[in-house]
Amino acid sequence: MSRRVPSQELVERVTRGDVAAIARLISRAESDSTEAREALVAIYHRAGAAHVIGVTGVPGGGKSTLVSELAARLRQRGSRVGIVAVDPSSPFSGGAILGDRIRMSAIAGDPGVYIRSMAARGHFGGIARATCDAVDILDVGGFDTVIIETVGVGQGEVAIAKASHTTVVVSPPGLGDEVQAIKSGILEIADIHVVSKFDKADAGRTLNDLKQMLALPAGGWAERDPQVVAVSCMNGLGLDELVGLIDAHRAVTFNAAAGHQRRLAMADFRLRVTAETLLLARLAEAARRFGAPLAECLERRDSNPYLLAGRLLEHCL
Amino acid sequence: MSRRVPSQELVERVTRGDVAAIARLISRAESDSTEAREALVAIYHRAGAAHVIGVTGVPGGGKSTLVSELAARLRQRGSRVGIVAVDPSSPFSGGAILGDRIRMSAIAGDPGVYIRSMAARGHFGGIARATCDAVDILDVGGFDTVIIETVGVGQGEVAIAKASHTTVVVSPPGLGDEVQAIKSGILEIADIHVVSKFDKADAGRTLNDLKQMLALPAGGWAERDPQVVAVSCMNGLGLDELVGLIDAHRAVTFNAAAGHQRRLAMADFRLRVTAETLLLARLAEAARRFGAPLAECLERRDSNPYLLAGRLLEHCL
Repeated sequence: MSRRVPSQELVERVTRGDVAAIARLISRAESDSTEAREALVAIYHRAGAAHVIGVTGVPGGGKSTLVSELAARLRQRGSRVGIVAVDPSSPFSGGAILGDRIRMSAIAGDPGVYIRSMAARGHFGGIARATCDAVDILDVGGFDTVIIETVGVGQGEVAIAKASHTTVVVSPPGLGDEVQAIKSGILEIADIHVVSKFDKADAGRTLNDLKQMLALPAGGWAERDPQVVAVSCMNGLGLDELVGLIDAHRAVTFNAAAGHQRRLAMADFRLRVTAETLLLARLAEAARRFGAPLAECLERRDSNPYLLAGRLLEHCL
Repeated sequence: MSRRVPSQELVERVTRGDVAAIARLISRAESDSTEAREALVAIYHRAGAAHVIGVTGVPGGGKSTLVSELAARLRQRGSRVGIVAVDPSSPFSGGAILGDRIRMSAIAGDPGVYIRSMAARGHFGGIARATCDAVDILDVGGFDTVIIETVGVGQGEVAIAKASHTTVVVSPPGLGDEVQAIKSGILEIADIHVVSKFDKADAGRTLNDLKQMLALPAGGWAERDPQVVAVSCMNGLGLDELVGLIDAHRAVTFNAAAGHQRRLAMADFRLRVTAETLLLARLAEAARRFGAPLAECLERRDSNPYLLAGRLLEHCL
């Protein structure tokens, strides 16, 4: 495919499940070209069938292994599974060093699984926007389930969970205090908590700690009622239960009435990240054209950041 | 201080080094109230003397211990040191669980050290903007050196390095492939590389790997010429050398001619994050007032994200 494929042709080919076209259109969504816009709008109107599952958690917590095993289970019952990795620590998004780990995984070489990593460059809102578009493209391309793997460090990365129907937060046992502090920021977004690596000695304590934390009467936990499941990818423990919980949560969010609030939150997130992308593109253009003398002025401390930023904004509006 | 202290009084008290006033004004900067704006502009015009050091790296890499030890060394020669933690994994920003670790550290109870964690809520650009303001406040409050500790995961967090004169990237030994992949995104921002925990058995290999990586002829490494130092906070190895490298780098960035490009890059970053904050505040306000029906429309798939986002932007401009 060395020639530039027209948008409309690309959309048609995505609709037929053409993997090369899917890859091509996701790349265009990432680069956010004006031409992509038209195709992405066409895709959006055909999308909406796929169940979007967000999987997040600290680096080294076993997210990628869990995603592999989860995808393999979903494959066994005939689902086609798309995986979008927004996680720089994921082997799915890694370079040559990590290739072997993907080849060894439970889903290696399965044509019913499509794995895509999103480039972690540009403004964060842009990545979130492109990720939503990638999910739609896979949806239209015939993937029933799309898993977004995102690292649970950095609030932008955590925010991507808002693009999913069902959010799974993975907590490994025994990473100590330092990681607990990180986790505290992501615990509240979970629909389902997985305590991973449950074959490890101290996993029971992590499960108890987590259950105790969730039982605390703080900030709306009671209403949300997240589920907790212990999983070991090494011996398969808990995987069927996890799939069951995911199915149950899917049934709720896809229900016209019961799932309305969740889907509305997803739409709200999408609206905001898309608007943010458009707005920050204008700012980047203004900074490119008019920023240099303002930065020079700021470097000399001849003015202040707020006044000069206000001047830059005049060129955006 | 239960009454609302007027801006001007707060600025005067910050200038006299009043720690309560410093804390109060940083909180106002975080909440980005209109009243804070006036004080922050006044602060900005008095700031510019402090050496700002960014310390970043993966969670668990020993950043916080290094920051403590570094601060202790700088204290020994009479510097006053401010620490701004934008790292959710830092004990400096942790809650009750982590308090003990701070109390045990090398700088516990020293009135010449001020530690402040930035709230990791709101839009990322907002945190970066507030962090720059906090650095200025500490600068005006009489701290010669301000260390920004930021977690090296998540690109927004990494970007905060651009707010510093001198960026130190901390790499611990033997964290394996998964973490190497994360690190790859932050290696290129380093002025100084620290291989931490050099008392560990496999630290020599990490040092060699890092040196080899830096010797690769890719993307401008040769020109930037970052320095590498092996440090053990357990036995003090390399800490004097690190302080020496930091001093040498300070001399360059504070030199009128030699440091101009770096200071210009800092000014450019500051201009952009401030503009971004102002712009996204307008977007948030527009979303609050006009977003709900647009999100409803999107949830019903009656329109597409790009068209609706465009409508939302009309209310920002």
